[in-house]
Amino acid sequence: MATPRRRTGRTTTTSAVTGGFRQPRNPLPPVDPLSPEQLEKIEAASFQILENTGIEFLSPRGLDIWEQAGAKVDRSNKRVRVDRGLILDKIKTAPSQFTLHARNPAHHTIMGGDYMIFASVSGPGYSLDIKRGRRNGTYADLVNFIKLSQSFGVIHNIGGFICENQDHHEATRHLDTYYAQHLYADKCIMPSALGYNHAHDAVEMAAIVHGGHEQIRQFPVTLTIINSNSPLRFDTPMIDGMTRYIEAGQAVSITPFTLAGAMAPITLAGAIAQQNAEALFGIAYTQILNPGNPVVYGAFTSNVDMQSGSPAFATPEGAWATLIGGQLARRYHLPYRASNVANSKAPDAQAGWESMNAMWPVMLGHANYVLHAAGWLDAGLIAGYEKFIIDVEVLQLLEGFMRGITIDDSTLALDAIDEVGPGGHFFGVGHTMERYRSEFYRPLLSDWQNYGNWEQSGSLTAADRAYKIAQDTLANYEQPPLDLAIQEELEAYIARRRQEILPNG
Amino acid sequence: MATPRRRTGRTTTTSAVTGGFRQPRNPLPPVDPLSPEQLEKIEAASFQILENTGIEFLSPRGLDIWEQAGAKVDRSNKRVRVDRGLILDKIKTAPSQFTLHARNPAHHTIMGGDYMIFASVSGPGYSLDIKRGRRNGTYADLVNFIKLSQSFGVIHNIGGFICENQDHHEATRHLDTYYAQHLYADKCIMPSALGYNHAHDAVEMAAIVHGGHEQIRQFPVTLTIINSNSPLRFDTPMIDGMTRYIEAGQAVSITPFTLAGAMAPITLAGAIAQQNAEALFGIAYTQILNPGNPVVYGAFTSNVDMQSGSPAFATPEGAWATLIGGQLARRYHLPYRASNVANSKAPDAQAGWESMNAMWPVMLGHANYVLHAAGWLDAGLIAGYEKFIIDVEVLQLLEGFMRGITIDDSTLALDAIDEVGPGGHFFGVGHTMERYRSEFYRPLLSDWQNYGNWEQSGSLTAADRAYKIAQDTLANYEQPPLDLAIQEELEAYIARRRQEILPNG
Repeated sequence: MATPRRRTGRTTTTSAVTGGFRQPRNPLPPVDPLSPEQLEKIEAASFQILENTGIEFLSPRGLDIWEQAGAKVDRSNKRVRVDRGLILDKIKTAPSQFTLHARNPAHHTIMGGDYMIFASVSGPGYSLDIKRGRRNGTYADLVNFIKLSQSFGVIHNIGGFICENQDHHEATRHLDTYYAQHLYADKCIMPSALGYNHAHDAVEMAAIVHGGHEQIRQFPVTLTIINSNSPLRFDTPMIDGMTRYIEAGQAVSITPFTLAGAMAPITLAGAIAQQNAEALFGIAYTQILNPGNPVVYGAFTSNVDMQSGSPAFATPEGAWATLIGGQLARRYHLPYRASNVANSKAPDAQAGWESMNAMWPVMLGHANYVLHAAGWLDAGLIAGYEKFIIDVEVLQLLEGFMRGITIDDSTLALDAIDEVGPGGHFFGVGHTMERYRSEFYRPLLSDWQNYGNWEQSGSLTAADRAYKIAQDTLANYEQPPLDLAIQEELEAYIARRRQEILPNG
Repeated sequence: MATPRRRTGRTTTTSAVTGGFRQPRNPLPPVDPLSPEQLEKIEAASFQILENTGIEFLSPRGLDIWEQAGAKVDRSNKRVRVDRGLILDKIKTAPSQFTLHARNPAHHTIMGGDYMIFASVSGPGYSLDIKRGRRNGTYADLVNFIKLSQSFGVIHNIGGFICENQDHHEATRHLDTYYAQHLYADKCIMPSALGYNHAHDAVEMAAIVHGGHEQIRQFPVTLTIINSNSPLRFDTPMIDGMTRYIEAGQAVSITPFTLAGAMAPITLAGAIAQQNAEALFGIAYTQILNPGNPVVYGAFTSNVDMQSGSPAFATPEGAWATLIGGQLARRYHLPYRASNVANSKAPDAQAGWESMNAMWPVMLGHANYVLHAAGWLDAGLIAGYEKFIIDVEVLQLLEGFMRGITIDDSTLALDAIDEVGPGGHFFGVGHTMERYRSEFYRPLLSDWQNYGNWEQSGSLTAADRAYKIAQDTLANYEQPPLDLAIQEELEAYIARRRQEILPNG
């Protein structure tokens, strides 16, 4: 069992590379794309779905809990039907803002309000770089992506299986993943909820690292995505995982995967109504289990390409869904989770415009937690090294935008304008000289040279440069200190669990 | 002289490729990034600049006109100082909305309100494609880019020197440019204002094509950009060009080129105050010359990269400037011009994210006229074939977004949701089958295939695919019919003017 433990030696780990850690605050009011009447129509449809069609909930204990809470439960088909009044009453206890605690307090992140959290990609089975191409993800890739996530200040949380360590046994690879997350980063992590084991081990290991169960219950340290199995189903592994996290007081995001045309109606209005029904249902359940448990309204509505049957991301429909999802989350005073998505298979122009086209609606919709913020390619199947760096630049550009501008006598610069006068230039004047080092956004990856200099430096494309930046960042990575006793306790825990899960090795 | 002429045979030219001509209307309310107090501070600074520092106006006749209008004119340094009252009084007569008339009436475009016009890039001296690299622009390139602009419905107006025909004599190449614009496209064109000749010949040729001087005065057919020589100067060629267009009742956009840190203060507030001073000054002058003349508030404020001295585009500062420019234009009830800008030297990821990062603020700021909407690379020095196609996709994605979504009983799809039920899928149901051909955005360039199919089709990047789309579009281009008598009259006019301008050949 984990021993409660004081946190020591983990507060001073800000290397040069991670120097820019700063949670952006959204300076623009959120965009509400729907009129109040339109929003109410969607909500009313969600309630009709919950009242008439109902949700299949694949947990005998869960069905009992719903029944005790006042829902109509049909055990013949495991269907739960819930009144709008009950749903709205239950979700009331969910906090509108909370803090996710990192083992480095400088990396705590606030969830809610106008704050944004960018978390690296989670879930890909493949990794890709332009030299080696696509291949199965390995533990080495996973560790690399955790190191990249730790190294850039604009990445605030560590995604889950950023790239799946397929070279480890499926039944125990989550232990290796969690170990790497705790060892190579001191930012908040996102463990997985694929069944009880994933959740249980995440909680136990977090308790070892963060000072015990009571400590993490008071100060939640993980956020985990709970996907409904759209349409209208929560399956056993997800319910078991979610339940374990909530027992430990950890944050979850209820995120229906409602691709219009496949797991949801082809019409966006219906897909979002269904998303809202599933999300509210899951959120209400978290509050029945543990009133006040931190929970995030998750949206992942996009559409399938009806020609190929593939999911299509960063589409016009996805932009509307992202904005409307935010409007719904605000209606319920809940933090909002969205994503940085793309279909491109390479770190090319499509990857660039898709990332930016995903992120603008995310920012305008006031998403608080942005999963897959860096590294996602090929509809989430590939974690890309160059795409990670491209996304860091995209996020930094938006973070720079969110810093806003100052309007006062000094920045209005009337004296400098008069001093320079018609036909002059501002390069040399005092007003410029005082500010030229720090006034503007400075890029990581963007090339702003003139053509001649760019050609002389090798005519490198953004992908070429991103490859080099990823390699350099890994070479310069500094591991944040972890108390050796904690590391040993983690290792002992993993060894024991490996033996329990796979007794025959 | 041009003979007034009925327009004939030019109304039926909608080929398959141009089928999608449709001016988007902005569905979201404009984003006002500044508080009313902040906006007033910027405006007050603009007025102080105009009242105290003044504008250098390099036209003796112009100085007379300003003096007659009530401004203080200092002839020793050609400085004009104008009261805020005079400025605000004069700009009142500018229309808040007008129509630009194309020779194909299906391609008329409305300027103002929530309408957007996308015009191709204007000004590059170089062309670039991935097979041949960068080279000096030629007439063949220019014609190609006009054909591309004509072929895509999402390009509403033809940019000016989309790519400069450097293989033609500098003194007469504008004649060849205008000829190509009128011959190869039936959309509105943007001629140049670099001196009297450019403007005069544009007006005369437009009169030939569009039925005479009185016709184009009543129904303006061209929009031209008038750049102030920031800081605070209008030079002789621009004033002469502007004056000629206004005498002919043609639309102009007054667009200061206020790069913060070079031609404007390094602080964005000051750069925008200066932009606003120069724009209001120029707009007031258009209305003094011809009250009611169509005019557009132009903004082109970005910043220089203080490390290299190069202009930096699609930056966080540029996004703020674009949004604030829109807020100012709306304050004066004027249509608003902005741009799709980029620094990338190649059709790579940077080109993709820069285009999208430029266009979201353009859309949110409710720009009505978007110059450089397709094809701009390398800070405007290169017209790129692949970038043109990338931008068409970016514009189409945003146009798709601007179509909005429908929320009614049919799209809320409660029956379909109940029919499919928990755990089912929506592929085969009637609600899907009725809509699957037309419900979603369909891409031009985006690849949404799965990895295996993408690999089998050659692992082409977006740039590779864009190259092919550009070539195919040019191969399938259909020239819109032009009355032969008009064409001959254009040719005769050009021959005569060539002789006048270059009597010795």
